[in-house]
Amino acid sequence: MLLDKIKGVNDIKNIDPSDYQELAQEIREFLIEKISHTGGHLGSNLGAVELTMALHLFLNLPEDKLVWDVGHQSYTHKFLTGRKDGFENLRKFGGMSGFPKRKESDCDCFDTGHSSTSISAGLGLVKARDIQGRSNTIVSVIGDGSLTGGMAYEALNNAAKLETNFIIVLNDNNMSISENVGGVSKYLNNLRSANAYLDIKEGVYKTLKDIPKGDKVVEGIRKAKSSFKQLVVPGMFFEDMGVTYLGPVDGHDIQAMLRAFQEARRIRNAVIVHVITQKGKGFAPAERHPARFHGAEPFDIETGLPSKPRTTANYTDIFSTVMTKLGARDKNVVAITAAMPDGTGLKRFRNMYPDRFFDVGIAEEHAVTFAAGLAAGGLRPVVAIYSSFLQRAYDQILHDVCIQNLPVVFAIDRAGLVGSDGETHQGIFDLSYLSSIPGMHIMAPKNKWELSDMLKFAVAFDAPIAIRYPRGEAYAGLKEYRAPVELGKSELIYAEGDICLMAVGSMVKTAETVKEMLNDAGYKCSLINARFVKPIDLEAVKWAVENHNLVVTMEENVASGGYGEKVREAVDGLSNKVRFLTIAIPDEYVEHGNVDLLKKEIGIDAETITDRIKREMES
Amino acid sequence: MLLDKIKGVNDIKNIDPSDYQELAQEIREFLIEKISHTGGHLGSNLGAVELTMALHLFLNLPEDKLVWDVGHQSYTHKFLTGRKDGFENLRKFGGMSGFPKRKESDCDCFDTGHSSTSISAGLGLVKARDIQGRSNTIVSVIGDGSLTGGMAYEALNNAAKLETNFIIVLNDNNMSISENVGGVSKYLNNLRSANAYLDIKEGVYKTLKDIPKGDKVVEGIRKAKSSFKQLVVPGMFFEDMGVTYLGPVDGHDIQAMLRAFQEARRIRNAVIVHVITQKGKGFAPAERHPARFHGAEPFDIETGLPSKPRTTANYTDIFSTVMTKLGARDKNVVAITAAMPDGTGLKRFRNMYPDRFFDVGIAEEHAVTFAAGLAAGGLRPVVAIYSSFLQRAYDQILHDVCIQNLPVVFAIDRAGLVGSDGETHQGIFDLSYLSSIPGMHIMAPKNKWELSDMLKFAVAFDAPIAIRYPRGEAYAGLKEYRAPVELGKSELIYAEGDICLMAVGSMVKTAETVKEMLNDAGYKCSLINARFVKPIDLEAVKWAVENHNLVVTMEENVASGGYGEKVREAVDGLSNKVRFLTIAIPDEYVEHGNVDLLKKEIGIDAETITDRIKREMES
Repeated sequence: MLLDKIKGVNDIKNIDPSDYQELAQEIREFLIEKISHTGGHLGSNLGAVELTMALHLFLNLPEDKLVWDVGHQSYTHKFLTGRKDGFENLRKFGGMSGFPKRKESDCDCFDTGHSSTSISAGLGLVKARDIQGRSNTIVSVIGDGSLTGGMAYEALNNAAKLETNFIIVLNDNNMSISENVGGVSKYLNNLRSANAYLDIKEGVYKTLKDIPKGDKVVEGIRKAKSSFKQLVVPGMFFEDMGVTYLGPVDGHDIQAMLRAFQEARRIRNAVIVHVITQKGKGFAPAERHPARFHGAEPFDIETGLPSKPRTTANYTDIFSTVMTKLGARDKNVVAITAAMPDGTGLKRFRNMYPDRFFDVGIAEEHAVTFAAGLAAGGLRPVVAIYSSFLQRAYDQILHDVCIQNLPVVFAIDRAGLVGSDGETHQGIFDLSYLSSIPGMHIMAPKNKWELSDMLKFAVAFDAPIAIRYPRGEAYAGLKEYRAPVELGKSELIYAEGDICLMAVGSMVKTAETVKEMLNDAGYKCSLINARFVKPIDLEAVKWAVENHNLVVTMEENVASGGYGEKVREAVDGLSNKVRFLTIAIPDEYVEHGNVDLLKKEIGIDAETITDRIKREMES
Repeated sequence: MLLDKIKGVNDIKNIDPSDYQELAQEIREFLIEKISHTGGHLGSNLGAVELTMALHLFLNLPEDKLVWDVGHQSYTHKFLTGRKDGFENLRKFGGMSGFPKRKESDCDCFDTGHSSTSISAGLGLVKARDIQGRSNTIVSVIGDGSLTGGMAYEALNNAAKLETNFIIVLNDNNMSISENVGGVSKYLNNLRSANAYLDIKEGVYKTLKDIPKGDKVVEGIRKAKSSFKQLVVPGMFFEDMGVTYLGPVDGHDIQAMLRAFQEARRIRNAVIVHVITQKGKGFAPAERHPARFHGAEPFDIETGLPSKPRTTANYTDIFSTVMTKLGARDKNVVAITAAMPDGTGLKRFRNMYPDRFFDVGIAEEHAVTFAAGLAAGGLRPVVAIYSSFLQRAYDQILHDVCIQNLPVVFAIDRAGLVGSDGETHQGIFDLSYLSSIPGMHIMAPKNKWELSDMLKFAVAFDAPIAIRYPRGEAYAGLKEYRAPVELGKSELIYAEGDICLMAVGSMVKTAETVKEMLNDAGYKCSLINARFVKPIDLEAVKWAVENHNLVVTMEENVASGGYGEKVREAVDGLSNKVRFLTIAIPDEYVEHGNVDLLKKEIGIDAETITDRIKREMES
């Protein structure tokens, strides 16, 4: 096995070039085998095998720097830098991350997770190199999907001024997670179908040489303020900005890429090497269903089907179903996703109401202000964005939606711990960043029926409103508690005294268990389902404070700025005798791993909470 | 006076075309006169007089929709829509806003203030129009500076798919607030110097006609996948994306603009009309010093000099001075601004250390991740961005700086109430959005010396750290209190008992006054200067709680997620007997006006605070 010759960084340089294809094949089989057990980002990694090999052959790591945009395509990079064993516990608690991590290897020079950051980060590394007088090579690898994000463009605009080398590899598979959208995508399509750079240039020169006064044409063109280069290079979109363009290059041809990289390194400014790859390459099910194998659960290699087919509905399914009903009922309901029609569950809405569905690409900022415009124009937009990605649009929510009090509904999926994607993807800040915004309203459902009720409430509500719900199975308990959703009103589930649990969304289920354990230990226990984090239910807080000895707030969000702080603040002028216990995510990033394990680790599982409450009651 | 004929919207259509220039002149004189008294955005408004007139002649407001990017250039629009009298109290408390406001006029269809939002908002209005079957015209006016912001590009990318009309007017004055930067700017420069669209095309056709086999050249070019259009149209950057480009057009020639707008309306997709204007046009001092007259204080019309020259240093001056010293002392210190070298005070640093200064354009997201890259490369970046604009980079601070624990210093100017710019510019959220981020450290200085000490501390500190300081005069009191800055330690100023004031940054000065007033009323009063909002000084909180009857937290930030909530949270397990009073900005947007008036209005001035404390103590 060639695989066994790769024990650490730069070992690939000892492989005979005639064996590159064989090694690529072995890496592919290795990745498919491992990911079929652990789950992970399969498609993007299969597409980037040869590209990563070429980069490792070209660069001298760790002196040279390699920044991976998003970072989910870094598996081959991890393999080639001595982390083969890490794949046993990929994305598991305590195991190897699915993203680049500086703390994992000195070959990971910049952590990523969210999209479109790599050119900014790479440019920072370039400037640091130049100021400190080093001469190493710096490469950022960005996908075509990430190019739909505005900050990549902000970075390109700045890279255009550069007078030293900076290589940007455009890993173009014509895909975000789902299909790509917009003008840039259309433009890249044209580049893709163009012949290679040099071929074209030669072709046109030849045409001109055959023609009398051909030189004069070129001169006339120059006078018209268009350079000859503009005529023949397919990458004018980039060249217009002042960034050199090389390509397109076959992203599965290692020697061709090596030649392009060598050429790129000679250029004294920012240079884009446009590499065409195929997502999912080498695994037929992933080639056929790229979206399904973007972030895959463990699967059967023969069939490509999930090892454990899902049997219960998750919150995304509920959202998906209710949205189609709301779309039928009200022609003003429109839906917006940022490159996630599958992940957010909006695919069905798209299929039924294509004219009222908008996939804006990986562009959360635009998504939110666009929604504000739709609302100002009289529609009822529902913006479905994951909690951690909506962080990108904090200013747009505050500045474009809430100052104008526009009726935009935010459907915030993956709110809370998301598990194996880890630190960059945990949705544990939204209650804080949304609560700070005047005019915002925030709800969280306790179970699947409540998500449905809240969504209907939100679409009929005439102001900005958010619903946050977690990844994974939708809670199907407490079905009998279905009082109508009322603005700012919580729901009293048990009124028994002593201890009052005030739980937000996903934590109501945990609170049920905590209550049972406390009952077993001889404590009486009330339970309030918060429903609204903003505005907070002052009456419920008053009732809790006046009728209990201990009030326990429970939320799957950081403590700072969260529900617990709001409840304490609301106590002003009420009884001073009650004690408080805040159950929230501590002030630290939460790594990857199984959600139940993570909850135990950070102390928001039912057992730890119960123990803390007992200690508090006994003190 | 032609001015007197303009009493309401569309009255301009009754003006004889031969009088347009005269009206433009009268509007200019009116604006200069009014702004010389009230202060305001002079340069951008003088540049946009004819453009606004042309748009009002072209459109049928309020049925048609006009979105102003940033919005500070909307004065002529306000004038032409019957708000002439509003200029008496422009930007004053209770008076007319300096930005478009839906609540002010039905001709203001979308509120703006921050940059680069207008294409997203306009596209939303376009889609709402199409879905609801209307046929009105929608125009977004965006400056060339705003085009350096990524979300404008996200919006263009989406506008490229449009199959109905949407007019984007590019108001190009070759300026952000300061000079423009980057590839786009360079590109626009080339367009500016190009002849008009049709002239060029004809010129090239002629060249080709003169040459035997000229047609064949064109054909060869076509085969090489470059269309002939690419050769001759100056706006290929936009055309590449699928947006039609018209221009450049003289932005002071009303008839030329009208022709371009009429032509633009016939196009069944998004179309950019490139209009060249001169910032400050018609007022010599503003033409010469565009940055100074961007947002001007009241000035003398004859000389262009401020009516009340500033005699005391503000925090920006202190920051400016200390940065130059730090730059001299440490070659690793670099500075970053997002289009505000003047406003942030980094101009002196730029002049002294041009290689270590970066103006990234209006691109806060890139600014922060670029800084993360610089820090990962071994430098000490200081990112100077106003509080309300840094909202744009919440995700980048969290995801790119803090997860990796990179030593980036955030110098947050205009933190707190900023006054006459109003709702969109108040810097009253930073303590909240920064506090929610694990790994962040937050300081606020009580006076000018403390800003200096904190900045030196920050640059030597090996983790993410922010210093927030307000607009305006730097407090020069409490000079004798200058204990060294220590991580997470507050500063005890007075220890007298009864009441403990715990004040953040700018509120220490207010607390001084409150203390005096309380002393006069017979109360003893301690005062703690918080210094750090994160991490909070637990020892100080303990001391305050154990030695006082009332703890009063004071901050110029919204209550939600702010310092007061942190102090309450920190009390866990301490005495339960103390009472709390949170002085903070209430959960609402704060309009424009004099800062002292605003503080009174929202109850964070010394008198109101003293009254509240007295009531609390007497209850």
